[in-house]
Amino acid sequence: MDAQIDGLKYDSNGLIPAIVQDDKTSQVLVMFWMNREALAKTIQTGKVHSYSRSRKRLAMKGESSGHVQNVKSIYTDCDKDVVLIKAEQIGAACHEGYYSCFFRQFQPDPAATDWKIIGEKKFDPEHVYKK
Amino acid sequence: MDAQIDGLKYDSNGLIPAIVQDDKTSQVLVMFWMNREALAKTIQTGKVHSYSRSRKRLAMKGESSGHVQNVKSIYTDCDKDVVLIKAEQIGAACHEGYYSCFFRQFQPDPAATDWKIIGEKKFDPEHVYKK
Repeated sequence: MDAQIDGLKYDSNGLIPAIVQDDKTSQVLVMFWMNREALAKTIQTGKVHSYSRSRKRLAMKGESSGHVQNVKSIYTDCDKDVVLIKAEQIGAACHEGYYSCFFRQFQPDPAATDWKIIGEKKFDPEHVYKK
Repeated sequence: MDAQIDGLKYDSNGLIPAIVQDDKTSQVLVMFWMNREALAKTIQTGKVHSYSRSRKRLAMKGESSGHVQNVKSIYTDCDKDVVLIKAEQIGAACHEGYYSCFFRQFQPDPAATDWKIIGEKKFDPEHVYKK
């Protein structure tokens, strides 16, 4: 297990980008960063863990919301510097309440000043994170 | 157009990670980096462009191989610090000859020393890049 994790290329901060994709629909849910420990924990527990660069700590996805991601399979790319995880999403992936974090679409209209919201809210963040 | 691109959060090097996904099958093909110019060119031309950190230059994906990616739609995430592009892939995305760069799967077997190759080669890189 370690030989595979150790074979990955982490950046100068010891981090590697990770993409999580819905195992059934293949919808891309979120991209975040992992360190070696986050990936090891993800493999050991079968729940996706990430490393927060702003909070400088390891966290299980869904730790406070209950919206965990159950790992189905894990991949890496040709350069071994990106991780792709197929997972079952409980609840929704985005802390803003959307199923996927990629809920904003670019508008080709040159007059458009902002991205168009195309996702549908699955929960109210105020309600989930307030307590 | 610029207002939307300018609203994105680029890192301290002026770069943003970009994920390209097959528009039809939703298979994740590749993750790379873009600067503001690469994204602008991608939008203007309808062909995916990336910024190579090692070669320090902008390049159209498929520039030498002909394996271009035709943009169908573009998304960003909640934090506006990742770009997701749905595209039609001509040929194959990976310079190693696989349709997707994510052709290596993690093996849960603790005795496994390397990732398992699960992709199928679509072309021979020696043949495509030699000239």
